[in-house]
Amino acid sequence: MKIRTLITSFNLLFFFVNGVSQNNDSVTIRKLYDYYLTNSNCYSNLNFLTTKIGGRLSGSQQAKNAVEWAKKAMYSAGADTVILQPCMVPHWERGKKEICRLQSNALKLNFLLNCVALGSSVGTGKLGVTAKVIEIKNFEELEHLGEKIIKGNIVFYNVFFDQTKIRTGNAYGETVKYRSRGASMAAKYGAVASLVRSMTSVADNEPHTGNMNYDTSICKVKIPSLAISYIAANKLVESLEKDNKLTVYIETHCQTLNDEPSFNVVGQINGSEKINEFIIAGGHLDSWDNGQGAHDDGAGVVQTIEIISAFKKLGIKPKHNIRAVAFMNEENGLAGGKAYAQYAQSHQEKHIAALETDAGGFTPRSFGVDTIKGLYRLAASWKNLFSPYLIDKIEKVGGGADISPLKELGVPCIGFEPDTQRYFDIHHTAADTFDKINKRELELGAGGIGALIYLIDKYY
Amino acid sequence: MKIRTLITSFNLLFFFVNGVSQNNDSVTIRKLYDYYLTNSNCYSNLNFLTTKIGGRLSGSQQAKNAVEWAKKAMYSAGADTVILQPCMVPHWERGKKEICRLQSNALKLNFLLNCVALGSSVGTGKLGVTAKVIEIKNFEELEHLGEKIIKGNIVFYNVFFDQTKIRTGNAYGETVKYRSRGASMAAKYGAVASLVRSMTSVADNEPHTGNMNYDTSICKVKIPSLAISYIAANKLVESLEKDNKLTVYIETHCQTLNDEPSFNVVGQINGSEKINEFIIAGGHLDSWDNGQGAHDDGAGVVQTIEIISAFKKLGIKPKHNIRAVAFMNEENGLAGGKAYAQYAQSHQEKHIAALETDAGGFTPRSFGVDTIKGLYRLAASWKNLFSPYLIDKIEKVGGGADISPLKELGVPCIGFEPDTQRYFDIHHTAADTFDKINKRELELGAGGIGALIYLIDKYY
Repeated sequence: MKIRTLITSFNLLFFFVNGVSQNNDSVTIRKLYDYYLTNSNCYSNLNFLTTKIGGRLSGSQQAKNAVEWAKKAMYSAGADTVILQPCMVPHWERGKKEICRLQSNALKLNFLLNCVALGSSVGTGKLGVTAKVIEIKNFEELEHLGEKIIKGNIVFYNVFFDQTKIRTGNAYGETVKYRSRGASMAAKYGAVASLVRSMTSVADNEPHTGNMNYDTSICKVKIPSLAISYIAANKLVESLEKDNKLTVYIETHCQTLNDEPSFNVVGQINGSEKINEFIIAGGHLDSWDNGQGAHDDGAGVVQTIEIISAFKKLGIKPKHNIRAVAFMNEENGLAGGKAYAQYAQSHQEKHIAALETDAGGFTPRSFGVDTIKGLYRLAASWKNLFSPYLIDKIEKVGGGADISPLKELGVPCIGFEPDTQRYFDIHHTAADTFDKINKRELELGAGGIGALIYLIDKYY
Repeated sequence: MKIRTLITSFNLLFFFVNGVSQNNDSVTIRKLYDYYLTNSNCYSNLNFLTTKIGGRLSGSQQAKNAVEWAKKAMYSAGADTVILQPCMVPHWERGKKEICRLQSNALKLNFLLNCVALGSSVGTGKLGVTAKVIEIKNFEELEHLGEKIIKGNIVFYNVFFDQTKIRTGNAYGETVKYRSRGASMAAKYGAVASLVRSMTSVADNEPHTGNMNYDTSICKVKIPSLAISYIAANKLVESLEKDNKLTVYIETHCQTLNDEPSFNVVGQINGSEKINEFIIAGGHLDSWDNGQGAHDDGAGVVQTIEIISAFKKLGIKPKHNIRAVAFMNEENGLAGGKAYAQYAQSHQEKHIAALETDAGGFTPRSFGVDTIKGLYRLAASWKNLFSPYLIDKIEKVGGGADISPLKELGVPCIGFEPDTQRYFDIHHTAADTFDKINKRELELGAGGIGALIYLIDKYY
């Protein structure tokens, strides 16, 4: 009985201390959300970044402007210091608007297909490319058809998003290989160009760009590669069914110039106790050129800058150094993510956790947290603190592209996941614009991120 | 030890049986979602209802058209029978576009404020009303100022949405009394008209209508009542600060005509075992006239009709009678909700559960379920079945306006709650249109509702 009483007392004490602690935390978190929902600069910052600077592909003047803007925005937010971390980034330019024209004498058809060149693709130049089209469902089919069928033709990867995937990112993950490797795979069998059905969850006429890679281990020849819209892909399929000898004329003027110097922009609140320990949260500053990079990933940039404002305005003095990182070159190279990890290593900075927000400024749903070094277990214990704020899940395994080099160094990583339903409707399109942002959704995401960083700093 | 072993075995057995059962259910639920996400008619039905029929206020020709459409849509979905339940509904008409003009000689201002008459309001007629404006923060202030200040003037309820409320419905709940009772309260002190700041979560120029009631127990005089947009309200406040003698001219041509006969439309799948027991799920067919009634509540109507299609196409034969109910007159009278409950009583139909979906076609988040008769406890046991489909919460206390008369009869009620962040941006405005609907979000909501009805039928 004595031992039992002792255990019970201990449990009660633990419960009490824990209860009081969680109560204090819930008060602070409530204050954070009140700030985010009524006084934050997320929305106005994003308005400026997207509508005044606009699309900001690595190497472009807009990307340079975005670096300048981020530095100012971080100082305005109250950063103790802002670091510009240099990195060399690719400089690919789209050039004149792409043309993709379907032509069928048999069907008396001659019309444009909505298209966009894929990032890193070579251009056709002004002479363009005209060829017949071979529709392909997957790489196995491509290999099966082989050079005999493919050579001299345009390969068209007609692969749909799997709409039954509840989280749209899973559908994207299945199809994106046709965008990234499709050109080299097609070139291997002698194709003169490759087209891909846009990776999209909506049946509309927006073509979705995104990066592709020439994999010289597959084929040394570089062929032009484009995405066509969902509707354009349907039209092409329908026309091919009636006339498999139809041709498509492609004209693109994209080119890869010399690499350019650029920067990650890192805003820091200095820690009061752990002066060489760092907790970072970041999004990426670069975006595709065809839209405004609002959800991808202006949202992530402004959400993480806002951590600085929130902590400063509420007088939260973190133990660790807290950094908001605006990574450069996530879209077509990851130079910024790699440079960040190298900087951390060369400066012998101890990173205890890294969060990335790069899934849009939608209503928050969950955090994915790495299980290593106890971070997941700790974060899961805060579930009740997040539940009132629409973050209902703390899931195992976290990360993001920009922080993946840190993950390789053993840093526990966290991915912020908002609602995913609308993201791939506009992802990498001209429609990824500021008007697609809902202010409250953006701010609620920022609130969740800010609250998580606050708790990690306090308890980890 | 023996007892312990027995308990363990029992637990294992329970776990096994329960596990197998949940496994079967998860297979069926997966099939339901696959259907909803790839083959359902939710989106095309909603397209027709909103863009071909449009806004459909009770008593209007469009509401009549909507009844005809719903009947056909339910038969097309495979309903065994479709019942038209008669009810008499109010017939209020907006008439010519409202005018609300701010006039200040001192400030040399003369401009229109975006406005919309509130449902059930009397009109000013073509002579209009011109008066000074008294800004009011709450009813206490109104009472404090009293007849001396209020008489002969226009009362302007300048009450903001509380943006710190995480669920926007809570902010709406706090402010809606100024829309519903504000006119009678103002008239009590001699006001000649009342204006209300739109109940909105976004700072834009859309005025939000909604019903108001003349409470003759407060005042017998009926004065015109309008909502002005958030931006118009800000302009009015700014102008009043500089010139509190400015006037506003109001002209509205709304009128209340004789009540009209109308109907709830009830599509039924006949139960195989419990031939006098009913599970219903409904939305409301009527909508405000100024928009298309897409989120409010075309979405709920098409989601619940889809239960019929889904069950029929997947060969799910329910034990109980399952009904999709398109309620009439939720917006300005609840005649349909009352008529449904009366019909159930007079036909001695035993209703075991009623669900309402009237919070928009957004990504699902939770169900609110009544604790009476064990329904909440049962539903909570299905949490793991819903978690993969983004429904992370089963909460206590459920309901909805249309099913509230059933609730009074002791029927356990359920409210479907999707994400609430965007709902009050467009609620009761001209912007509640089909283009605001995301197909997948709508279908995921329908899937959750269909799955819940399936489980209730099977286990309750």
